Amino acid sequence: MKRLLLAASALCLTAAQAQTIPDEVREEAEALLEAGMEDSVGYETVKQLTTRVGARLGGSEAEERAREWAEGYLEELGFSNVRTETFTMPYWERSYEYAAIETPFPQELEITALGGSIGTGRGGVSGEVVRFESLDDLIEAPMDGSLRGKIVFVDEGMTRTQDGSGYGVAVRKRSGAANEGAKRGAAAALIRSVGTDRHRFPHTGAMRYADEDAKIPAAALSFPDAEQLARAMELGPVTVSLDIGVKTKREVTSGNVIAEIKGQTDEIVVIGGHLDSWDLGTGAIDDGAGVGITTGAAKLILDHVSETGEKPLRTIRLVYWGAEEVGLLGARAYAEAHRDELPLHAMAAESDFGAREIWQMDTRFGEDKLPLRQQMIRVLARAGVALGNNQASGGPDVSPLAAAGVPVVTLRQNGWDYFDLHHTADDTLDKIDEDELAQNVAVYAAFTWMAANTPGGFRAQAQPQASE
Amino acid sequence: MKRLLLAASALCLTAAQAQTIPDEVREEAEALLEAGMEDSVGYETVKQLTTRVGARLGGSEAEERAREWAEGYLEELGFSNVRTETFTMPYWERSYEYAAIETPFPQELEITALGGSIGTGRGGVSGEVVRFESLDDLIEAPMDGSLRGKIVFVDEGMTRTQDGSGYGVAVRKRSGAANEGAKRGAAAALIRSVGTDRHRFPHTGAMRYADEDAKIPAAALSFPDAEQLARAMELGPVTVSLDIGVKTKREVTSGNVIAEIKGQTDEIVVIGGHLDSWDLGTGAIDDGAGVGITTGAAKLILDHVSETGEKPLRTIRLVYWGAEEVGLLGARAYAEAHRDELPLHAMAAESDFGAREIWQMDTRFGEDKLPLRQQMIRVLARAGVALGNNQASGGPDVSPLAAAGVPVVTLRQNGWDYFDLHHTADDTLDKIDEDELAQNVAVYAAFTWMAANTPGGFRAQAQPQASE
Repeated sequence: MKRLLLAASALCLTAAQAQTIPDEVREEAEALLEAGMEDSVGYETVKQLTTRVGARLGGSEAEERAREWAEGYLEELGFSNVRTETFTMPYWERSYEYAAIETPFPQELEITALGGSIGTGRGGVSGEVVRFESLDDLIEAPMDGSLRGKIVFVDEGMTRTQDGSGYGVAVRKRSGAANEGAKRGAAAALIRSVGTDRHRFPHTGAMRYADEDAKIPAAALSFPDAEQLARAMELGPVTVSLDIGVKTKREVTSGNVIAEIKGQTDEIVVIGGHLDSWDLGTGAIDDGAGVGITTGAAKLILDHVSETGEKPLRTIRLVYWGAEEVGLLGARAYAEAHRDELPLHAMAAESDFGAREIWQMDTRFGEDKLPLRQQMIRVLARAGVALGNNQASGGPDVSPLAAAGVPVVTLRQNGWDYFDLHHTADDTLDKIDEDELAQNVAVYAAFTWMAANTPGGFRAQAQPQASE
Repeated sequence: MKRLLLAASALCLTAAQAQTIPDEVREEAEALLEAGMEDSVGYETVKQLTTRVGARLGGSEAEERAREWAEGYLEELGFSNVRTETFTMPYWERSYEYAAIETPFPQELEITALGGSIGTGRGGVSGEVVRFESLDDLIEAPMDGSLRGKIVFVDEGMTRTQDGSGYGVAVRKRSGAANEGAKRGAAAALIRSVGTDRHRFPHTGAMRYADEDAKIPAAALSFPDAEQLARAMELGPVTVSLDIGVKTKREVTSGNVIAEIKGQTDEIVVIGGHLDSWDLGTGAIDDGAGVGITTGAAKLILDHVSETGEKPLRTIRLVYWGAEEVGLLGARAYAEAHRDELPLHAMAAESDFGAREIWQMDTRFGEDKLPLRQQMIRVLARAGVALGNNQASGGPDVSPLAAAGVPVVTLRQNGWDYFDLHHTADDTLDKIDEDELAQNVAVYAAFTWMAANTPGGFRAQAQPQASE
């Protein structure tokens, strides 16, 4: 505890001092930015992860292999304190899935079960399809038994945007379709995939039952299949059959893989991506990219530190979060395990939005630390990054940290085509542009260096520090 | 026979006359071209076929439903002599297919069995993969037993071109990989899909065994999976397991659906597309589009004829060819059934290259009829069509007609992205642009009208006519 106090007071400066990133730190950040543009470690990391492991569902044996690979890889890169912090979790996986129009135009449909869905039971379910243009239309449907035994079909689209803002709106139906359908007696729920592509890839993703006693199977149709079903329904009543099998286990082990560059103090800057992926693709953009980007950035810093022999002010902690897709389980386990240490977390940021260029930096800094935003952006602007708002989430896996008051940054990537691939079989390495990935490495390296070396940190001074 | 003689002699003109498309015919063709640009029948036809039937493999029950739909639909549009000419054929269908890297990086691979492939037998086959950069590399591999029990992997790419010329080069491996592999003792053959996309869709397509006593299973990997397998192999030896099940029947029934606009003579102009599709997608671009384009064109002409009360000089025969994908079986059956009538075939053209705009007209006319090409193109140029060569094939299903001396035209469509979708699950209606399809309808209508009404026809005068 004495050490904590010392470290924290070393960082406790006057307000004037606290609002400045030292020139030397900015210059070093600029050098890292420049070096990052030529980085190959980031891409090599995604390549290794997606090739050697492939798909790695949270809690699976494949995710375990990913952790084993990661520990060896991070050791080899020269990081300190490489370890896995394990946690336990319930497990879900798909076994099989099949859907078809039964009448009047028999033909198969491409679907995928949503993560967490129950199975249909052998033999499946079939029923007449009732289509809703939006989840809100289903929510407004009467509870009059008219949906009893039917298959509800929420045929709501998603808007393509640079910032991914279409997702929040569209993703409600992923749980909503089954929950609202079940309330009304439906036998199963289908949704148009939460995605922006026009390919024959259904998009999976987690759904959660609102009522343990009212569960119905839930699956997503690919874009062409949603269009096909809607077209068939224009010609009259349509019956669909669904056959979905899933396996669950009460408890399996997952973990967060952690590596560090030790700092001069006990304060911590956390960066990382999540190690798990959905089961359909090899998880290149979601989130091999985030793992690669932050590893590339951390490695650049490690090399810089090795060269100069000068540690950063704060420890840089690289975290490969486990089991993100299935409910931020690694994030919660980390926040719980590190609860006492959270006041020492000076900054956190996760890369989890693909591999396209970063175009904006959002932050969540203390109000009196806002001038640091401008100082940071002067460096990052060299890579095309503009200054955004001060309401950043920091990324899904650092959201529990943000909730606990840890300053966060979201380095926003161009998400224009992210939801074309997101949670599909098509999320594979070939979709990543090496140069764009390198821009991310560059920006993360420069940002992380400034985050780790700015005296006074990014919390409001009024906010209690470890030393107060 | 007397009728044949009369009809033929009516069309037998002097060389000077034979080289002219009458002004009135050209003006009518121009009006059809203009009307075609606003056509909706073409798109409606593809929409109905792909929605009401979906995938329709040659010889399948679904293809039979397509014929039933087609007969009713063509009757309803008002065509004459609507009928199906049946033929028998052997049948092949896939039951299941699975592939995975077994060692050292266990993970599933997306494959599809090639049409005609044998199954692996229950339990599948597994073996070390031996990769060849091209089919020619495999052909050059020694017959020394070094491939015994191995899985050959022909990892040859395909060049994207406007005219589809990359296909002929790339498609050799579809049969070649298994045949050359079998000669050398391999247990199975994998190919990088014959396609130009980067999505996780394996492309199927027909393969044919060269030696009945040396058959090994053959399947295609999607682009990302071919890349993945090649990457894994860079790190050391890789073992893959394959499990493919197929069903075959010695004899099933298929058929060509035929509809006509009766002409003043017994000469015939044939246009059409093929009714069957592969089993993975709904066959929108291959070849619902061709069916739609030629139906839209024929319907425009039918309406024109109904309005004016004046029949075309020649009968316009619309053919929906059956079982094209599995070996031009409908085409061969037609050529056989209509052998005696072939000299009366004045022209033939098939639309079977997707739904993008037509940019060039290739022909195969008699040498003394070449001036007709310029006259035709003066009309078609209004829709952006340029004049090409005089070595046209006319399209796969009219190739037996072309071989029998029937003049043919290929109205070449922009094939830039055709092989992105070709033979994949992603070949669905939403990939068709209605305006581009209408341009095709317009061009086919104008072309067909000129083909049906140009005195003297398109064969060389020196070539024997029915009247000689």
